[in-house]
Amino acid sequence: MQPIGDIAANAGIPEEAVERYGRYKAKIDVTKLPVAKSFGKVVLVTATSPTPAGEGKSTVTVGLADALARLGQKSMIALREPSLGPVMGVKGGAAGGGYAQVLPMEEINLHFNGDIHAITTANNALSAMIDNHIHQGNVLQIDPRRITWKRVLDMNDRALRHITIGLGGPGQGIPREDGFDITVASEIMAVFCLATSLTDLKERLSEMVIGYTYGREAITVRDLGVQGALTLLLKEAFKPNLVQTIEGTPALIHGGPFANIAHGCNSLIATNTARQLADIVVTEAGFGSDLGAEKFMDIKARKGGFSPDAVVVVTTIRALKMQGGIAKSDLGETNVQAVQSGIVNLQKHVETIRAFGVQPVIALNRFITDSQAELDFVLHWCEENGVRAALTDVWGLGGAGGEQLAKHVLEILEEPNDFAPLYDVEQPVIDKITTIVQKVYGGKGIVLTDKARKDLLQIEQNGWGILPICMAKTQYSFSDDPKKLGRPDDFTITIREIIPKLGAGFLVCLTGDIMTMPGLPKTPAALNMDIDSDGNAVGLM
Amino acid sequence: MQPIGDIAANAGIPEEAVERYGRYKAKIDVTKLPVAKSFGKVVLVTATSPTPAGEGKSTVTVGLADALARLGQKSMIALREPSLGPVMGVKGGAAGGGYAQVLPMEEINLHFNGDIHAITTANNALSAMIDNHIHQGNVLQIDPRRITWKRVLDMNDRALRHITIGLGGPGQGIPREDGFDITVASEIMAVFCLATSLTDLKERLSEMVIGYTYGREAITVRDLGVQGALTLLLKEAFKPNLVQTIEGTPALIHGGPFANIAHGCNSLIATNTARQLADIVVTEAGFGSDLGAEKFMDIKARKGGFSPDAVVVVTTIRALKMQGGIAKSDLGETNVQAVQSGIVNLQKHVETIRAFGVQPVIALNRFITDSQAELDFVLHWCEENGVRAALTDVWGLGGAGGEQLAKHVLEILEEPNDFAPLYDVEQPVIDKITTIVQKVYGGKGIVLTDKARKDLLQIEQNGWGILPICMAKTQYSFSDDPKKLGRPDDFTITIREIIPKLGAGFLVCLTGDIMTMPGLPKTPAALNMDIDSDGNAVGLM
Repeated sequence: MQPIGDIAANAGIPEEAVERYGRYKAKIDVTKLPVAKSFGKVVLVTATSPTPAGEGKSTVTVGLADALARLGQKSMIALREPSLGPVMGVKGGAAGGGYAQVLPMEEINLHFNGDIHAITTANNALSAMIDNHIHQGNVLQIDPRRITWKRVLDMNDRALRHITIGLGGPGQGIPREDGFDITVASEIMAVFCLATSLTDLKERLSEMVIGYTYGREAITVRDLGVQGALTLLLKEAFKPNLVQTIEGTPALIHGGPFANIAHGCNSLIATNTARQLADIVVTEAGFGSDLGAEKFMDIKARKGGFSPDAVVVVTTIRALKMQGGIAKSDLGETNVQAVQSGIVNLQKHVETIRAFGVQPVIALNRFITDSQAELDFVLHWCEENGVRAALTDVWGLGGAGGEQLAKHVLEILEEPNDFAPLYDVEQPVIDKITTIVQKVYGGKGIVLTDKARKDLLQIEQNGWGILPICMAKTQYSFSDDPKKLGRPDDFTITIREIIPKLGAGFLVCLTGDIMTMPGLPKTPAALNMDIDSDGNAVGLM
Repeated sequence: MQPIGDIAANAGIPEEAVERYGRYKAKIDVTKLPVAKSFGKVVLVTATSPTPAGEGKSTVTVGLADALARLGQKSMIALREPSLGPVMGVKGGAAGGGYAQVLPMEEINLHFNGDIHAITTANNALSAMIDNHIHQGNVLQIDPRRITWKRVLDMNDRALRHITIGLGGPGQGIPREDGFDITVASEIMAVFCLATSLTDLKERLSEMVIGYTYGREAITVRDLGVQGALTLLLKEAFKPNLVQTIEGTPALIHGGPFANIAHGCNSLIATNTARQLADIVVTEAGFGSDLGAEKFMDIKARKGGFSPDAVVVVTTIRALKMQGGIAKSDLGETNVQAVQSGIVNLQKHVETIRAFGVQPVIALNRFITDSQAELDFVLHWCEENGVRAALTDVWGLGGAGGEQLAKHVLEILEEPNDFAPLYDVEQPVIDKITTIVQKVYGGKGIVLTDKARKDLLQIEQNGWGILPICMAKTQYSFSDDPKKLGRPDDFTITIREIIPKLGAGFLVCLTGDIMTMPGLPKTPAALNMDIDSDGNAVGLM
């Protein structure tokens, strides 16, 4: 690893903007950067419908930026911060892999520079202030049955999903139902990732709705007067974190909202900072293009006022076989037939990206279980269908394994770009949702439950209908049924609930069973974690 | 402020041991310090029975170290980290005050370098692992009704004191009663503050009891196999934090266990590091000498194998008036009579310190409401009774306001020291508790509730009786009744419950109503917190 001061200097970050956190991490005070003269192009990395293990999207993001640097480009990475819950649960780490990693891997995976802890604290300070307000006389007439603000922890802890609090008598608060979400599902995380400055952050925090009065009026953070304290708690966390890849490419890792309940990409301030510093920014959005990429385009790029200039769609033989109907346990066996059945999934993701006016390039990310026949089939299909594609092995080779992909990306960046969000925010809510379902998912339309109809009525009465849509849907299918694989078309999407997130500035549409607090598996990754006798981390990856 | 690298260099810390966190904070990798040739002396700052606002113990600690530096001594401070809960609640800050402060005050008060968040995370990871173990089949036969390990947050949040978790059906865990403590009351905080190395930390974490089986066997962290993950989560936090006073004196601020439920002083590793680097270490223990100082002597100094070489007893006219029976609202009015009534409280604290074989010096810490007659009375009383005393105004004058105190301290450090803990750990539990009650509190003896008798039986059956005692008692009286002021003597202490803390290595004896999760007041300090238009913190102190 190079000292972080050298990485910063190479990236054009002046010393006065660099706040070191140890030798290999820094926070960047963006108010001390020189005024930008130009902004770099943005390459979004997304994926086809994934397997539970993921297709190596972060790994490809890292490898692509390294490859661009090898080709003489001034590239920079903008990524999400890992959430400790999944790291301790199933994943064991989330900093890329093999030779395409961001470093220091252990510290990025554990606590990092404390950003997620600051968000946990701000979220729960608000909760404590709400319950204290009621306990101390409830001047605002908050209905304890209609508090929508939940507590959070950065932990996979199913036992906290549904709880009752305030038990034990008059001195211990007001009894009510509550629950904990994982921190990355907090609206504060979404707000944090869409705010353009500390002032904007405070304004957005003020607008968050925490529940309703007995008279059904919305109560906001501003009503409670806590926006100043919450902003103060987030002040240091709001500075983007600088680290490096194994090959020395600078990476900003900052913010990490869930890609199902929220919009699933790193902070806008980190992306904008990277655009200010580099010629090409490689960034990532969670899950497949139906989730992360759609929200990246319709929510983040729209708010940020920039265009994604190229989109990399990561796919794997395993993912295509799974979409071709093969069980998870059999994905290691060669099965060209299944790849052939699953290729329609890739086709739909390509069409989705093109629907936004942006050109995709496929990164066929190699796994050791892949057979040459399977790989050939996919590359041949791409050629036949006029889709740029490259085999990548950045895990095994680092940037060298992504040079072909990088060349395709550079070609696309030379071409004109017709990017436009998919819908106009001024359209009726129903029309916006229907547009996403038809153009992105390839479905027929939508069905609203009674609850969702009531929500919609309330949203319209309050004048909140002009916000963009944040769909909460399974990542395993274009539909809301994880079992409908490949490229289903004969389906409707059921909207169960519509939740206004006024701070984040979007309407969350819940479909299917969306988990906002994961559980731990039978053998959590934490059981393999340890320190060795020299105090080094063991069991992270 | 001086760059933290300069402070470190002046303190004799080699560059390779300094991990910067921003410009003015650093973590110290103690494994990279040179082998110590000698160890500095330790000055403990404690207080008489305090008012709710506190007597300025941290302020005197800072001012005394600054004064010692002015007198040409190589001094260093070892202090506790502020807990965010009280900072957001009543206190608004805890980094000293006026011209006797540690800097950067805002960052020390908010998140600091993430240590307390790491402890919260480790504590709650253990909770999640316990509930997951039961949910996944409960091989260890943990009785959900007998889980003693609670969740924590660094927040004042009364609504979380008594909760039920695991509601919602078979997929959501096992329903049971639970509750949240404030993080500084976690046994992990106590363990963190008494461990001498990462290896010792892991060993102590392994020994923590989390509950009992259906067959009443104790279940430890080792049984769950999580000690490695917990240690890993605490790895970076375990490095002491270096900051500076306004006058440039180096300060290690690290760890912060509650002084009621735990032992109430900063980490042993920070104290030992300061002893290794400086000639005189000024440190503090929570509340009055009956709580913090007693535990400092009988728990921390015993484990750490060092002697406190002098003890400063901070008192104020306000505290003595309160002990003289004056209501909180009337403490601002001159009342020599009340000071005279309250002086017996000071007398008892002096006797307590002498009972440990250490010489006390009184710091009469000046407040603007004090009258000259009141101050003169106390100073005269000290002279008459052969107690060293100095008027301090370090809040207003910095180190210059503590020079007289520093001179007294230097005199004591030249004298021989007969320090010994008050009891032998091999004595029966009852005898150890009785010794504390009689010699420190001045009471007649103890009464055990039925619950405490059962606890004692279990402790003896498990062979845990050889641990030192950690009393949990109100800070407002020597007795367990906060209304018994001055110097009560005709009282017994009721032991309600005895909780084995095998990781921390002590037996907690609960007396009276001990709060392990504070609540917020009607107008929390958080309501005054904000950022200004330049992004600076407002409302902390």
